[in-house]
Amino acid sequence: MLIKVAYNGLCGSDVHEFYEGPVAATIDPHPLTGCSVPCVLGHEFSGTVVEVGAGLDDLAIGSVVAVEPIETCGVCPRCAAGRRHLCRRIAFHGYNREGGGLSELTVVRRDMVHVLPAELSAVHGALVEPMAVARRAVRRTRVERGDLVVVHGAGPIGLGAILALRADGVEVVAVDPSSERRSAARALGAREAVDPSDTDIVSMVRDLTDGIGAAGAIDAAGASAAFAAAVRSTRPDGTVVVVAHHHEPLPLRSGSLIFGEVTVTGSSIYDTNDFAWVIKAMQSGAYPLDGWITTIELDRVVEDGFEPLRAHSVNKVLVRLDQRTA
Amino acid sequence: MLIKVAYNGLCGSDVHEFYEGPVAATIDPHPLTGCSVPCVLGHEFSGTVVEVGAGLDDLAIGSVVAVEPIETCGVCPRCAAGRRHLCRRIAFHGYNREGGGLSELTVVRRDMVHVLPAELSAVHGALVEPMAVARRAVRRTRVERGDLVVVHGAGPIGLGAILALRADGVEVVAVDPSSERRSAARALGAREAVDPSDTDIVSMVRDLTDGIGAAGAIDAAGASAAFAAAVRSTRPDGTVVVVAHHHEPLPLRSGSLIFGEVTVTGSSIYDTNDFAWVIKAMQSGAYPLDGWITTIELDRVVEDGFEPLRAHSVNKVLVRLDQRTA
Repeated sequence: MLIKVAYNGLCGSDVHEFYEGPVAATIDPHPLTGCSVPCVLGHEFSGTVVEVGAGLDDLAIGSVVAVEPIETCGVCPRCAAGRRHLCRRIAFHGYNREGGGLSELTVVRRDMVHVLPAELSAVHGALVEPMAVARRAVRRTRVERGDLVVVHGAGPIGLGAILALRADGVEVVAVDPSSERRSAARALGAREAVDPSDTDIVSMVRDLTDGIGAAGAIDAAGASAAFAAAVRSTRPDGTVVVVAHHHEPLPLRSGSLIFGEVTVTGSSIYDTNDFAWVIKAMQSGAYPLDGWITTIELDRVVEDGFEPLRAHSVNKVLVRLDQRTA
Repeated sequence: MLIKVAYNGLCGSDVHEFYEGPVAATIDPHPLTGCSVPCVLGHEFSGTVVEVGAGLDDLAIGSVVAVEPIETCGVCPRCAAGRRHLCRRIAFHGYNREGGGLSELTVVRRDMVHVLPAELSAVHGALVEPMAVARRAVRRTRVERGDLVVVHGAGPIGLGAILALRADGVEVVAVDPSSERRSAARALGAREAVDPSDTDIVSMVRDLTDGIGAAGAIDAAGASAAFAAAVRSTRPDGTVVVVAHHHEPLPLRSGSLIFGEVTVTGSSIYDTNDFAWVIKAMQSGAYPLDGWITTIELDRVVEDGFEPLRAHSVNKVLVRLDQRTA
């Protein structure tokens, strides 16, 4: 399907790719697609269907869609076991396929396309991918309505986790050193948003939970201190979900696992149904856009996108590629 | 209840206590019991009821019992949340209470006593405690009949894990550098027992599992290489349960959690029902005693117990305290 891109969000991994790459893109031909650098970046995008391949007549030209930017091999042990999102040969549109979201037009497979309901804009459409990443991390905490979860890091994934948790009726404490991000976290529904440099997270969470600890934690910070606080403030059988990459080994001691019986796991992109869940929750109004989205034009992508993202000075940045789009 | 001790097993933590203590015992009065060093060691024991306190008439004098050697506060957040085995003021008979199993007679509470069925001997009785530790670790893997689990470390807890897994119909690969322990692991039902110094555990497990990895792993080794192999050879959503203490931080990187979606947790002693499960499984014949138990007399406890245990040269050592017992 030929898609005229409306908006493409910039992701932390795009920033790494731009300044330090190739990271996700490959120098050798990708084992699934044969593609290699140079690549067109952009894997968080929405757009309009402008042309379809032969036989793909179930989707009207002009449909506004969000793209799930992955292609998987279907035959590796993980695909065979129903874990296609962990496919050992996974290819991302925007790194490992022909084209990417930071272009006027790009071609994707029919099974990568999710039609947006009429009440959602292409801005929402470009947010579905990162929000699905956050949603899956939330699912993996296995918490329930009324539980308390601590979200470490209130960048786009952390904020997405807050929104998904709030949509499920879960209480959230957000932790981030940036006052701007803490404000966004509060505006999006966090009950508290605290600065780890002046707050003892473990004591605070114990005080909020009758001494037992939080039901879960999401590490969307990628910082050792955040992970350590997450482990220490989570109750027995609670789950710490790591969604951010850490450069250092995780600071984890056997005693925390044994005497605390806390569970530690990770979350990788999104599984079947996460895109659909996010789109439905957006329809229900669970994803307000005020206060955490910045929209820029393509010719300013370095100065107003990658540079401030590298400095952690903005929240979600969307690049507008279709000038007709509001 | 006054118990005439029949057999008391020696545990790795007794070895630490003897040579490096106090570790579990305290110099200051224990917050729950007020006891402090010196203490009588011994928390894995069986014996005969010789006298009961006023009103405790539900248990016949002469009953053969296994003792669950813990006393908990009942009021801390963890006790209040139904996690008494993680009580922050837990006291162990044999470290933190008056008396221990390495004595002729010792006094315990009624709720610490499990009556053994007639077909089980006092030798089985002294094994219930460590086998309950292993059973709980197995439960926390959440594996099912027909799954494959890798058990790292084939000391008493590792062997106990193998027995509990086999009782549940789970396939086991055991890993231990000691050929003696590997032999015991095979005799107790491990499908394979391999030496980590000459076997690539990750490759072997992938070969045995169509490339996806084991359903779970138990780290009863407390060695960094064992934990690392456990994480790398466990499938997505499989669980690595740490039951052995590590001196070093665990070698865990965020990428293993994120791209592998493996779960890591720990297991602490035993929860409600683990003693009863083990006793019932012993009745069913799931705990043969041949080949992994050594029985010694109390006057040889250092030379034939602590010394060889410190050198990892024997398997389970039971001290016979009642000369009338077979």
